Amino acid sequence: MTNLIAIGIVPNLLATAPEAEPSVVLCGVLLSLVVIYLASKIGGEFSNWLGFPPVLGELVAGVIVGYSALHLLVFPEGGASSSDSLLIKFLEATAGLDPEAAQATFLAQSEVLSVLSELGVIILLFEVGLESNLKELLEAGIQATIVACVGVVVPFAAGTFGLMTIFGIGAVPAIFAGAALTATSIGITSKVLSELGRLSSKEGQIIVGAAVIDDVLGIIVLAVVASLAKTGEVDVSNVIYLIISSTVFLVGSILLGKFFNKSFVAISDQLKTRGELVIPALIFAFILAYIGAAIHLEAILGAFAAGLVFDESDKRKELESQVIPISDFIVPIFFVSVGAKTNLGVLNPAVPANREGLTMAVFLIVVAIVGKVVTGAVVWGQANINRLAIGVGMIPRGEVGLVFAAVGATSGALSEPLQAAIIMMVILTTFLAPPLLRVVFKDDPVDAAKSETAV
Amino acid sequence: MTNLIAIGIVPNLLATAPEAEPSVVLCGVLLSLVVIYLASKIGGEFSNWLGFPPVLGELVAGVIVGYSALHLLVFPEGGASSSDSLLIKFLEATAGLDPEAAQATFLAQSEVLSVLSELGVIILLFEVGLESNLKELLEAGIQATIVACVGVVVPFAAGTFGLMTIFGIGAVPAIFAGAALTATSIGITSKVLSELGRLSSKEGQIIVGAAVIDDVLGIIVLAVVASLAKTGEVDVSNVIYLIISSTVFLVGSILLGKFFNKSFVAISDQLKTRGELVIPALIFAFILAYIGAAIHLEAILGAFAAGLVFDESDKRKELESQVIPISDFIVPIFFVSVGAKTNLGVLNPAVPANREGLTMAVFLIVVAIVGKVVTGAVVWGQANINRLAIGVGMIPRGEVGLVFAAVGATSGALSEPLQAAIIMMVILTTFLAPPLLRVVFKDDPVDAAKSETAV
Repeated sequence: MTNLIAIGIVPNLLATAPEAEPSVVLCGVLLSLVVIYLASKIGGEFSNWLGFPPVLGELVAGVIVGYSALHLLVFPEGGASSSDSLLIKFLEATAGLDPEAAQATFLAQSEVLSVLSELGVIILLFEVGLESNLKELLEAGIQATIVACVGVVVPFAAGTFGLMTIFGIGAVPAIFAGAALTATSIGITSKVLSELGRLSSKEGQIIVGAAVIDDVLGIIVLAVVASLAKTGEVDVSNVIYLIISSTVFLVGSILLGKFFNKSFVAISDQLKTRGELVIPALIFAFILAYIGAAIHLEAILGAFAAGLVFDESDKRKELESQVIPISDFIVPIFFVSVGAKTNLGVLNPAVPANREGLTMAVFLIVVAIVGKVVTGAVVWGQANINRLAIGVGMIPRGEVGLVFAAVGATSGALSEPLQAAIIMMVILTTFLAPPLLRVVFKDDPVDAAKSETAV
Repeated sequence: MTNLIAIGIVPNLLATAPEAEPSVVLCGVLLSLVVIYLASKIGGEFSNWLGFPPVLGELVAGVIVGYSALHLLVFPEGGASSSDSLLIKFLEATAGLDPEAAQATFLAQSEVLSVLSELGVIILLFEVGLESNLKELLEAGIQATIVACVGVVVPFAAGTFGLMTIFGIGAVPAIFAGAALTATSIGITSKVLSELGRLSSKEGQIIVGAAVIDDVLGIIVLAVVASLAKTGEVDVSNVIYLIISSTVFLVGSILLGKFFNKSFVAISDQLKTRGELVIPALIFAFILAYIGAAIHLEAILGAFAAGLVFDESDKRKELESQVIPISDFIVPIFFVSVGAKTNLGVLNPAVPANREGLTMAVFLIVVAIVGKVVTGAVVWGQANINRLAIGVGMIPRGEVGLVFAAVGATSGALSEPLQAAIIMMVILTTFLAPPLLRVVFKDDPVDAAKSETAV
């Protein structure tokens, strides 16, 4: 039956709906990649020039080329069709795309870009795992762990409870939004600290340690929440299953990985052909990502675990230098697509119906900042420590927050206003943290000598 | 109208054909990539261990995991459906794939892999362009040019004429097969010469020069032939248009590129964020690839031209070191897919209907070898030159020959037996050249001192 129905990638039962021509789909993907790379570079450079993290600029540039403004990069999620895409019009004008096949081409191209974007976030989390330090994570000790836990529990509880009681949001979307509030961007935080010469300070060490633990907690929370979003219910036994399975999966893959780690180095040393290091590593990462996805957790959890495993390998430096170009090639597709899919129109204050989304955004931003700043208060037994700086250092949500927003958007659990409010929260916390950190560290002496070697 | 019909990537007019779930499509792509990487590494290493080029092993491993043997990686081209794919069965067993959605998932996954494979060959030709030397290409001079031209004209004419007269093949498929006979693999040839310590010998220089020119000629021939295959006719004015447009395009992009080259280095120096070198280079390559495809040439022609341009850049070494991991990541998808799509069953001599394909394969292999070996005869004014070695050095068709076979398969111009015969010819010439080169160079003294620095 299915054989008869679907012998092409798009419907060809009716003569009026021609198939997408492969060479035109390729043209569409090539043009989309050009738009994505231009947006990511221009946005990233401009953001960097302004003193903000590049990833923020990539996201904003994605918003500009996407559904909210230029309509160069639009996706069928949210109801856009080929007639909304300027890129499809350009293909009709220049690459001989038959207007009859426009929708089919649009859908095929979007499918390919969506998978590329998902592969992008898998590679990103593999790289984050590779850059995280398992030992540092354990050595950062009890203080960092407590800071991380408070920084997860307080914003999560306040955000979820507030959305449910003040805004009357359902349990699943409220938990999703609360989960997005828990993330801390290790990339952004550690980069800013290094730029300020504070990475090796007491405050810096606690922030980085807590951010690393937060990354792991955040991924477990994400796995739990994404799975909840799929079933649409808060099922306590399922929550317990997920917490146990994600912990077992993460700890299990790291333990198994430690064993595999030595074989990996041995295997890689035996290989004589190109890609002898990166291909075995990717095989391992993709297998773990597949298992993560297949047992109803998340593919990124597996990729992160694989990265953490190789972090301990003798070949880590070499592997990292080969993963970075792959990451540069594929990760921008993820960030720009997330921005492009965002409909900022729902935050336009001129439209009365939008005011709920805006109020939610303001609420989320306040919870996001206060919920992390309080974490500084739990640090004990340290004389002259800058508690405010620790709290502020935990503020930026960065790429992890975006992953939550993107997973939420894909799962369909979030309403449009709530999704836009979460993205506003991620953008603003990421925006605010670098200048705020500069301010709160202003009166302390700098430990410049050590900072040069960092990150 | 089209909006109504195609709101999913697969037909959803009928309730019995459910859509492919994005997370399951991702699982399918991840598993396919694991199969591709395992096949490419095991095949490549084994081939290398036997003294053959790794790319040959990747191709053969693709044949093994593909339609001809294990059925792990099958594509809808040639009539395969989801029930032929062991991987889809595995997804049903492990990732909760609904059997009703199997065909939709199979098609979505194949679409993504096909585009990834096409991006793979674009990146490959970009890298080949980057590794080719424009100056060397011009300095190799008149001798290499004549060797290259003879090595294109003789096999092309003999192959096309023979197929049309002896086997009664139509003009378009015969021209396609003839064109596949013209290629010379610069990668394989230069690698083997370097391993034999012959790269800087007189013979070596002529072979490499001719192989470089052959690469360019081959791509022009490919563009001409692929376009002919699309229209299905041999239209002389179209041939002239294509020869002129591909020459103008290639020469034009190189001249424009020389201008852009300086701005490129200047722009890249200004950029402060990650990917400052590789992303602008890929933007340029993808734009040229898009133009190449849009003016009815080939995307790979643009990618090759972009590579040649950057070959002259001050940043070439740095760029190359960043392109190599991307290439390792994506190019195996192309080679393994080409192998996987090949139906070697049509060459089974036990089936009487197959004997035509087998006879054609034998004919093509003879033409492929003789047509290149004669090129040594046209070298003049060189005392004691090993003419046989020059001819033998031009034999391997390698990746360029595979590109012809893959483009032919996609265009639908080639019959199954002819396509399998072409792939057999590519495999055998690639197989034979390394041991043959070793034999013909046996009695000459080695210039080992210089060879170490090469390739």
